[in-house]
Amino acid sequence: MILEGRQTRSIARSDDGRGVRILDQRKLPWEVCWVTLRDAPGAATAICEMWTRGAPMIGVTAAYGLAMALDADPGDAGLANAHAMLLETRPTAINLRWALDSVRAAVAPLPPEARADAAWGRADEICDEDSDLCRAIGEHGLALIQALHARHPDRPVNILTHCNAGWLATVDYGTATAPIYLAHDAGIPIHVWVDETRPRNQGALLTAFELRNHGVPHTVVTDNAGGLLMMQGKVDAVIVGTDRVTANGDVCNKIGTYLKALAAHDNGVPFYVALPHTTFDPATATGAEVPIEERDAAEVTCVSGMGKAGIETVRLTESPAANPAFDITPARLVTAYITERGVLDRV
Amino acid sequence: MILEGRQTRSIARSDDGRGVRILDQRKLPWEVCWVTLRDAPGAATAICEMWTRGAPMIGVTAAYGLAMALDADPGDAGLANAHAMLLETRPTAINLRWALDSVRAAVAPLPPEARADAAWGRADEICDEDSDLCRAIGEHGLALIQALHARHPDRPVNILTHCNAGWLATVDYGTATAPIYLAHDAGIPIHVWVDETRPRNQGALLTAFELRNHGVPHTVVTDNAGGLLMMQGKVDAVIVGTDRVTANGDVCNKIGTYLKALAAHDNGVPFYVALPHTTFDPATATGAEVPIEERDAAEVTCVSGMGKAGIETVRLTESPAANPAFDITPARLVTAYITERGVLDRV
Repeated sequence: MILEGRQTRSIARSDDGRGVRILDQRKLPWEVCWVTLRDAPGAATAICEMWTRGAPMIGVTAAYGLAMALDADPGDAGLANAHAMLLETRPTAINLRWALDSVRAAVAPLPPEARADAAWGRADEICDEDSDLCRAIGEHGLALIQALHARHPDRPVNILTHCNAGWLATVDYGTATAPIYLAHDAGIPIHVWVDETRPRNQGALLTAFELRNHGVPHTVVTDNAGGLLMMQGKVDAVIVGTDRVTANGDVCNKIGTYLKALAAHDNGVPFYVALPHTTFDPATATGAEVPIEERDAAEVTCVSGMGKAGIETVRLTESPAANPAFDITPARLVTAYITERGVLDRV
Repeated sequence: MILEGRQTRSIARSDDGRGVRILDQRKLPWEVCWVTLRDAPGAATAICEMWTRGAPMIGVTAAYGLAMALDADPGDAGLANAHAMLLETRPTAINLRWALDSVRAAVAPLPPEARADAAWGRADEICDEDSDLCRAIGEHGLALIQALHARHPDRPVNILTHCNAGWLATVDYGTATAPIYLAHDAGIPIHVWVDETRPRNQGALLTAFELRNHGVPHTVVTDNAGGLLMMQGKVDAVIVGTDRVTANGDVCNKIGTYLKALAAHDNGVPFYVALPHTTFDPATATGAEVPIEERDAAEVTCVSGMGKAGIETVRLTESPAANPAFDITPARLVTAYITERGVLDRV
């Protein structure tokens, strides 16, 4: 990932090695603010209050959070309590449980005094693995974009994406954006339609910020616009990330993804879901069983952005609001899953 | 319509009879501000800059604008120029042309000195007709809601609507909202899911304001949420308005309508389009021929709402944005058209 002209990663150990620095995404794109998390409650707050977000980043941050907890209390109770606390931070992302279970499995058999270092080591591995996975997703997705480009070599390939499944949501590259960055770097002309992604506007705020930093041409649109764009032939493919893919291939992702999948299906536009294998959840049969996080109504009734005096919040309505954060895209609407192991027509 | 507890209409002649008072919708829901339009350029500005909006209200306002123009210059050139100027204010709404043509047809055969009064008279008729049409739409739609209520008498009927096709968009009752108001007044328990309707948030700002004033239970949701709500069985019907229905039944309406129609179709939820006959455009064969208005990108990149110091605007992104204002819902996705003449399965 390129941030302010420099190659970096969105999470890394702090200089003293017993904390991690992350970007405070609540201040993006207006301010690039690195914060250091120094204990498990801090990591939990960062996840819960969405300083950081995106299924892979949640998993990596929680893994480091568990390591920090073991620095403080490496006993069985400390391990169990920290695992439970971190698991509760977000209900939908399957990577969160996977990462926490992975660290716990690595350290539980060890004597308490050896657990913290082992947890830091396992969290580092998860971090590196995530970067490698995303790059591999990008390489497999690149082949799909090359094929789209070959069909219309005279114009840019138009990709629509929803929410932020970019490097801010992962350690590097992103999932949905990895094919885009690799295609751009390979010299394929590419243009991205960026859904603003209400209510939190992760598309307008974060994905657009990433693409600007990387120099990829893009246009922000309302979440309402994608159907028309597809009907007008202005979208060659949709690529989204996901928080969880169930055993039957149903895709849980940011609210509104399902609507784009329907429009893609209706217009013969390929609809790709990019994900590392850690996002597959074979233990859940279908999307109907996935709990849908209901977030604060104020995310709907109020909007934040850059005002005259810095980041400000304006209210849109005095009426009550509901705020389901995810929806389910049925497997039948998914053209293929772009994974680090290849492109799968079905799971 | 009930506004601040009083029965009123959203457009009426001013006290001196040679102007019209309208609500400045740009200030709603925060301030109920009536403004008086006194000449045709003022009427054009009010339409163009969306002080007033909604296909029927645009038509009525333009009709009065033509009458005001004839007060100033009743000659053939004055008539032609004012007709052309007012027609250019918004490209999509078919009622605009219909209303202007109707006034012109009524006055063109008359001697110039008789034209202005005749135009005012014809505009008054259009105004009364619009109110009557909307009430009739409401009565036909009421029967549909009664049938939905009979299927689940133990709970409220849940209606989802997009944008504002309420009394702010018409002279009274609204189109999509007329069945809702009549059902509520008839004692049927009803709850409305209000799409916020980015980029201009007419749902969150205006439809929610209307429903609050009338006492109808409602919940604002992002435009992204409707698909999930339908999948979860929380929507009994979708009712929307329209700016134009082409000869084959395609529906041009606020951007994002098509996505809701797809979701309704995918979940077996009836999708109704409420409209007066003046919104049918038999001269246009299909939706593909309807010009789609591209509005200012700033409507996407900036959001206005109530801030600490009054209505404020915040910026969401520094990236470029596109802002198509309407989309096309293919006729195959429409369950029925609710018109003043009855409920039509097809047009």
